[in-house]
Amino acid sequence: MTKGMIISDIARHISSSKSVGIITHIMPDGDAIASVLALTLGLRKKGLHPIAIRNDVIPKEYGFLPGLNHLTDLDDLHEYPETLVVLDCGDIERLGQGCELATKAGTVINLDHHISNTMFGNLNLVDTGAAATGEIVYQLIKLMGIDMDVDIATCLYTAILTDTGGFKYDNTTWISHTIAGELITLGVKPNLVSQMVFDTRTLSKTKLIGKAIDTIKIYHDGKTAVMYVDRHMLEQAGSSRDELEGLINFARDIQGVEVAVLIKEVSDQQFKVGFRSKEYTDVSRIAGVFGGGGHKKAAGCTINGGLTAVRKKLLEEIENAYNRREGI
Amino acid sequence: MTKGMIISDIARHISSSKSVGIITHIMPDGDAIASVLALTLGLRKKGLHPIAIRNDVIPKEYGFLPGLNHLTDLDDLHEYPETLVVLDCGDIERLGQGCELATKAGTVINLDHHISNTMFGNLNLVDTGAAATGEIVYQLIKLMGIDMDVDIATCLYTAILTDTGGFKYDNTTWISHTIAGELITLGVKPNLVSQMVFDTRTLSKTKLIGKAIDTIKIYHDGKTAVMYVDRHMLEQAGSSRDELEGLINFARDIQGVEVAVLIKEVSDQQFKVGFRSKEYTDVSRIAGVFGGGGHKKAAGCTINGGLTAVRKKLLEEIENAYNRREGI
Repeated sequence: MTKGMIISDIARHISSSKSVGIITHIMPDGDAIASVLALTLGLRKKGLHPIAIRNDVIPKEYGFLPGLNHLTDLDDLHEYPETLVVLDCGDIERLGQGCELATKAGTVINLDHHISNTMFGNLNLVDTGAAATGEIVYQLIKLMGIDMDVDIATCLYTAILTDTGGFKYDNTTWISHTIAGELITLGVKPNLVSQMVFDTRTLSKTKLIGKAIDTIKIYHDGKTAVMYVDRHMLEQAGSSRDELEGLINFARDIQGVEVAVLIKEVSDQQFKVGFRSKEYTDVSRIAGVFGGGGHKKAAGCTINGGLTAVRKKLLEEIENAYNRREGI
Repeated sequence: MTKGMIISDIARHISSSKSVGIITHIMPDGDAIASVLALTLGLRKKGLHPIAIRNDVIPKEYGFLPGLNHLTDLDDLHEYPETLVVLDCGDIERLGQGCELATKAGTVINLDHHISNTMFGNLNLVDTGAAATGEIVYQLIKLMGIDMDVDIATCLYTAILTDTGGFKYDNTTWISHTIAGELITLGVKPNLVSQMVFDTRTLSKTKLIGKAIDTIKIYHDGKTAVMYVDRHMLEQAGSSRDELEGLINFARDIQGVEVAVLIKEVSDQQFKVGFRSKEYTDVSRIAGVFGGGGHKKAAGCTINGGLTAVRKKLLEEIENAYNRREGI
């Protein structure tokens, strides 16, 4: 069956179902939430009454999205929907408490773009070439003949924007751009959405950035930048651990830096270490030396010991990696 | 005459000229440089021998652009080109030393997108709806039947990317996105270009960000963030004044902040003050109280006095602005 046939089947099934639930994974990101809202708003425009289900907290930065008022908490559901549309979810387990709905539903529809998708649905449309699930929802909305408005467009734009890192990641295709362009003609304000999604930081996170930058030290003729965050700094900034995300980029983005390291104090004598590389260094190999792993340009590990010894070991392994490249 | 007729005229003129120079404004930005290079590479593919003229320093972040090796310094020119193509230049004075070439050229072709363009050319194509001059060069290259390759595409992509702030500014249109999408199919790596253009900072600028964040103080129930940079901090970070650019965004981007202020010490008792607002405050009015000005969401002024007194005056005027809004 071609993708076109599957999507037609899905559209027909949704239109003829007695009740349709729409859900996404726990710890939802922008693509997940915005895809749920876009499909919900779209089906409502078609005169349907889908139940958009909230199975986890929506991060504050997505509070501006249209359609959030249509969300029903999982605990408040009166009945199991006949059809459950699962969005952006590679694995049914990622529905958390929502898993039960999938087992009780007559039909599970699986719309996703993750290569690891387990094809858990009765109808599966998994397009790994799509940069965002929002792109698949866009196709479905189009196919169902739904007249898109600025609210639906804003959701779809947000979905694509977040999963492409602002059209920056290499998953961005001409389709992502073509859809984004059309959504702008429908009234989406790129500046406003970007500001909401990317350009907002808590005060504590901002303070933590300042403190972490202050610790940056440069080694290996400017090729290595090491940043350090201890528990005292987190406390001073009023930060929680999740605010450590993205911090390492301030070290990686320094001109001439090839490998950036963030050493995070977990407890006395225990450190979590994050690595990023820019061009040619496989940091997963460096992390591997310490029992960790990851990807070529982003990896991590946990190391026990005193800070000075840990830093020394890390710098040695990074230097080894540079030497291997130069055949020394 | 329609735009289509003008662009055909321009294409014909360039093809039949004995010699063609291509130039842009001094202090060139990404759109300016990349447009010059795209057109140069394009014309070379057509078998022409345009002279790409460098009349100012190319900022380091554009050092990755293909075609830079074709640039000739203004001082090294042997003869005046018969036809001079001026790109991204609202005003002929902005050519700096290059102005002379325009007076000596048989034909000046003016390709630009600035609303303030003075129509200084013999042939003018000023499309104020274009987000970047790169979009106009794209049209010209297409019209001339030039087979685009990944090098030309990378230049055009960079032009659009920089002048739309990463497809973020409200000048971004469906055309910007459609062109960007096509350029990606030609092999442009969005991630790589973004990293070169946006995600690279000097060590001194990074250090300055850390120091400036450390000074942030919050007032008016979280609505006002004040940041401070003195000469000592610049010195400590090893920064020059131009590295102050963008610093204020770390204050503006804090959740809940409406007005951000950056106080820069110029000399004893003299301060330059920058303002940014997020939603409803007209900061040009606040700057105006101190003899400055600007736009609604970005303004500046110079204030003399002691730091404590200056800060107090600023906070009073900002509070007045909030009160005016609430009708107090």
